[in-house]
Amino acid sequence: MKDAIGVVPGLAVILVGDKKDSATYVRNKKKACESAGINSFEVRLPEESTEQEVLNAISAFNDDASVHGILVQLPLPSHMNEQNILNAVTIEKDVDGFHPLNSGRLAMRGREPLFVPCTPKGCIELLHRYGVEIKGKRAVVIGRSNIVGMPAALLLQREDATVSVVHSRTKNPEEITRQADIIISAVGQPNMVKGSWIKPGAVIIDVGINPVEDETSP
Amino acid sequence: MKDAIGVVPGLAVILVGDKKDSATYVRNKKKACESAGINSFEVRLPEESTEQEVLNAISAFNDDASVHGILVQLPLPSHMNEQNILNAVTIEKDVDGFHPLNSGRLAMRGREPLFVPCTPKGCIELLHRYGVEIKGKRAVVIGRSNIVGMPAALLLQREDATVSVVHSRTKNPEEITRQADIIISAVGQPNMVKGSWIKPGAVIIDVGINPVEDETSP
Repeated sequence: MKDAIGVVPGLAVILVGDKKDSATYVRNKKKACESAGINSFEVRLPEESTEQEVLNAISAFNDDASVHGILVQLPLPSHMNEQNILNAVTIEKDVDGFHPLNSGRLAMRGREPLFVPCTPKGCIELLHRYGVEIKGKRAVVIGRSNIVGMPAALLLQREDATVSVVHSRTKNPEEITRQADIIISAVGQPNMVKGSWIKPGAVIIDVGINPVEDETSP
Repeated sequence: MKDAIGVVPGLAVILVGDKKDSATYVRNKKKACESAGINSFEVRLPEESTEQEVLNAISAFNDDASVHGILVQLPLPSHMNEQNILNAVTIEKDVDGFHPLNSGRLAMRGREPLFVPCTPKGCIELLHRYGVEIKGKRAVVIGRSNIVGMPAALLLQREDATVSVVHSRTKNPEEITRQADIIISAVGQPNMVKGSWIKPGAVIIDVGINPVEDETSP
């Protein structure tokens, strides 16, 4: 990286508590940084930390010129105000793209977000790499989270898909899902989408990571 | 208004050029202000004004404590950068809700925009007043403009509708529109939605204002 752009980029991760999948994500991000020549910074705070302690960690990274991006691993403990914390990340270092200003630019035509949330961006990248046409196609996004579902729907629409968003209040979700050429499923419930929900030939990306009991294990 | 809240609110409108429908909108806003006890401020600039002249007018209203809301009538002349101009309106006076920070908050769950664009908000208000249930219903928004289509889709989704957005790249728009319980049509093309596109019993709101030749006029 230093050879290519003259500076070693720095990525800071703030992890609060000890959720297992969050720790896995953070570990993988660190590994990816190493292989790409990016410096990793990490702050781990205990589950019972105060909101102010998280804000202090963000503030320090905001002011640190060797840190170019700041990730606050979600979900945060329930006693913290996620909105206050995410808004504290300076917009220029909001590499997760979770600041409302970035969401707004993603939603608006003719605007460009500074950063796009990585998981939905990865979904679009997958579709591109496999040569899946998006323009004019019917797409269904299952789930409407700020992190995956909502930005995935906005990205698909920017690529000129006709997008429908299915969520927990949708009646008869299989009916609309069965019409889709492209399905992005991002829900916290394993095995929700059944084979019968999917039109033959449709492309489906499952974003959910859920631990499932292995029936054959002892 | 003064009796109710102790202050006379002020609404400023900036109108550039002399588009007929824009002038009508502005006139109607002024009338509505009068009947509600709101002070109107107005700046009219010629079509050939520079972007800087519009920015100066916004800046003056931003600094004027008697102005509580600023509307920049759209569309602006094509030689102006809409994004630069709308971003110049201070977020606290962005009564149109067109600032990306407001769009972002509208798109995100658990966030509240300071202001919501009035036309889509009016559509939801109409549905509420007529007792139309939105939650769990299939809704189709035709058009994806920053001003109506996009925020209308986000508002319907906030009310737990299952929303699909139909636009100029949608193949076979009648097929998906015919599944909708609620249709909000916001396109610049008259007579696009045909009777055959609408499911019997569906509720449809037509937001488009288009001059149509009257065949019976002399």
